[in-house]
Amino acid sequence: MESLRAGRRKFESLVVAERIEEKGIALEILQVAKERGIAISRVQRRILDDVVNGANHQGMALRVGDYPYVDIEDVLQVAAERDEKPFILLLDLLKDPQNVGSLIRVADAVGIHGVILQERRGVGVTPSVVSASSGAVEHLKVAQVTNLVQAMKELKEKDIWLVGLDVAPNVPPLDKTDLNIALGIVMGSEGEGMRRLVRDTCDMRVTIPMRGKVDSLNVATAGAIALYAAWQARGWRGWAFANVPNLEK
Amino acid sequence: MESLRAGRRKFESLVVAERIEEKGIALEILQVAKERGIAISRVQRRILDDVVNGANHQGMALRVGDYPYVDIEDVLQVAAERDEKPFILLLDLLKDPQNVGSLIRVADAVGIHGVILQERRGVGVTPSVVSASSGAVEHLKVAQVTNLVQAMKELKEKDIWLVGLDVAPNVPPLDKTDLNIALGIVMGSEGEGMRRLVRDTCDMRVTIPMRGKVDSLNVATAGAIALYAAWQARGWRGWAFANVPNLEK
Repeated sequence: MESLRAGRRKFESLVVAERIEEKGIALEILQVAKERGIAISRVQRRILDDVVNGANHQGMALRVGDYPYVDIEDVLQVAAERDEKPFILLLDLLKDPQNVGSLIRVADAVGIHGVILQERRGVGVTPSVVSASSGAVEHLKVAQVTNLVQAMKELKEKDIWLVGLDVAPNVPPLDKTDLNIALGIVMGSEGEGMRRLVRDTCDMRVTIPMRGKVDSLNVATAGAIALYAAWQARGWRGWAFANVPNLEK
Repeated sequence: MESLRAGRRKFESLVVAERIEEKGIALEILQVAKERGIAISRVQRRILDDVVNGANHQGMALRVGDYPYVDIEDVLQVAAERDEKPFILLLDLLKDPQNVGSLIRVADAVGIHGVILQERRGVGVTPSVVSASSGAVEHLKVAQVTNLVQAMKELKEKDIWLVGLDVAPNVPPLDKTDLNIALGIVMGSEGEGMRRLVRDTCDMRVTIPMRGKVDSLNVATAGAIALYAAWQARGWRGWAFANVPNLEK
């Protein structure tokens, strides 16, 4: 549904299991596909299982072209169009599609202008990422770069501050750094964090405090907290909320 | 490992797959089990697969007694011992062990004093929850109550403020409510939110702003953001961090 709504991919066909209940979101998808003139093929459920390689398909699969990656310039263009200070997420070699998708879902929720992924050993926008992002990645601008450090340098030349999320001594907590700036939040991989050169290229680092018996957070959880802290620092800008009754403490 | 470290369960035996590599965490677990005089049985890997019903066992399973639920009084006792204003998480009928475990892992990270779960239709502390919490639940105080609304009333009589996390019009964002109080954060189930009577029993509600194309957050993500906002409001109290270089904005 989000792929169809976003309308950025080449749509090849909609593959639908026989005897699917045509109601709710399934009905919506069928209607939108018809409106857009997308070929609809009805197949046996076991054939659909094959089509999606055993993934959870809920009775439907959309055959689409490659994910439409953008350039960094396109990400900055979003900031300019919205007349906002740039707000970008950079992911260095994350491995788990679930984490990447989850981060992209939150990135969408806070109105980030785009996501920059390190190509090759990192995760790209696979069907698992699309699913884990609840489809949010279909709407977001995602750039895939061959050299993240080089991309970071380009952003720095455009006066964007790069803040790395890190768990290390002597790193201040994220509420002690002013994040209401032209900002790129940089996150490292599960377990290993940012590569050294990526970390060294950051302008600042922030940490997420922890005081528990289990001394780690999932990378997607940590990223969600950091993204929301940054958006809060930006005054929830872009949040359409007309009627908050009592905003005083 | 966390079960052994916490030492709160009755330990029956440690079941270990033949030919497991005895190094790292596996070696640590074997050593602690020996120190504690826990019976160790070596079995074929396929028998271990059966023991854990196909869950991911990484070569070991600990047979333990029931999870040691506590009473609400025990949770409040933690606050008193630490000389802190109560800081409690209440979960109303969450269904997904992955979400419950993930929330408990974050609750541990922010130093919550205890978690209160609605019994029956909600998730209890199952092996899946233990695993999803990275073992944090073995250390945390968890109370399971038959009537969450009744438990909420008891907490209110003890001057604890109950703040419900809600997505609804006219609910202020979480940074506009002072959370540095004797606090219980209340979260509803996936999709449906809090039951009406639970919501009505809250003293206040707060929301997590969203501005994305996909208009929802995973409940574990939302809870993580709320728990961290609350701990931030409490000045990261309890965070052992001696040497922050530059805490000014």
